[in-house]
Amino acid sequence: MLTPAEIADARAYAIAAMTDAGVVLTAAEQADLEVSDFGLGDLTRTGLQLVVYVNTDRVCAKEMVLRPGQTCPEHVHVGAGDELGKEETFRVRAGEVWLYVEGDPTSAPRAVAPRPEHYTAWHEIVLRPGDQHTIMPGTKHWFQAGPTGAVVTEFSTRSTDERDVFTDPDIRRITVVADD
Amino acid sequence: MLTPAEIADARAYAIAAMTDAGVVLTAAEQADLEVSDFGLGDLTRTGLQLVVYVNTDRVCAKEMVLRPGQTCPEHVHVGAGDELGKEETFRVRAGEVWLYVEGDPTSAPRAVAPRPEHYTAWHEIVLRPGDQHTIMPGTKHWFQAGPTGAVVTEFSTRSTDERDVFTDPDIRRITVVADD
Repeated sequence: MLTPAEIADARAYAIAAMTDAGVVLTAAEQADLEVSDFGLGDLTRTGLQLVVYVNTDRVCAKEMVLRPGQTCPEHVHVGAGDELGKEETFRVRAGEVWLYVEGDPTSAPRAVAPRPEHYTAWHEIVLRPGDQHTIMPGTKHWFQAGPTGAVVTEFSTRSTDERDVFTDPDIRRITVVADD
Repeated sequence: MLTPAEIADARAYAIAAMTDAGVVLTAAEQADLEVSDFGLGDLTRTGLQLVVYVNTDRVCAKEMVLRPGQTCPEHVHVGAGDELGKEETFRVRAGEVWLYVEGDPTSAPRAVAPRPEHYTAWHEIVLRPGDQHTIMPGTKHWFQAGPTGAVVTEFSTRSTDERDVFTDPDIRRITVVADD
């Protein structure tokens, strides 16, 4: 659960980070900027700030901001019926991102998982401004920002948060806002 | 047909415009930056500079640069077999873009078409930094940069240049480079 004050603080942080990275947002996008703590109540460690630019039946694009050391927790995009799972490309605009995918575990990874018992993918990919990586459906992945935080653009197929499967059973993708 | 000198000049212009807009490109992306005159041999009036970030079977994203008054000429994205035509969202990062789509013609439009006999869509949409517009398949469209040029991100389904249908029969999408 997030308080209105936490959300306001996270939004201000994200807008400043995007502005520094040259991202221009409309007033409506700034007002609606999404803050998620993934239901764990520990926003600065597990959380994400994001603006959804577009999300149609076929295409989605988002701008995401992470604080220093903040983690988007491990999950996988699964399909439903005839529809393939979500495919996404992360392109880093500012800061550094440590992306972990299934595969050969990296020895001495840079990230420290916030709840390590719920992280299984440890193949590390380091992304700096201008770098990008594409995640195909069915691949478990998670990412953490380096010491200066990060701004990351995501290009993907349709975003269906309700079909993301998180490794950590306590995670809830829908943000609950506490009363003031 | 473009000369190597024209291409080098257009690439340098585009890289400077993107850098000013906060876009970070890798060295490989800068070296491969695409310049198209659409076969008309009049690059500063009809042309486009672009970097393709990703183009998989399902998702495409590009960064495009236009010089002041430069036009991406009228075309439409058609499907083939079971595949729908391309859907694309233009989001302006810097400068101003005058986008024209099918619909009620705008009286006193801002743009001057470079070869007006080959332009039929005159419903004007003015896009400034942070503004965006989504074009569904089957909609004729074209766009021109305002007086300071423009940097535009495109989020779309798979890009299939060979299936773009241009109104102007003299247009060729594949760039031909002249010998030095």
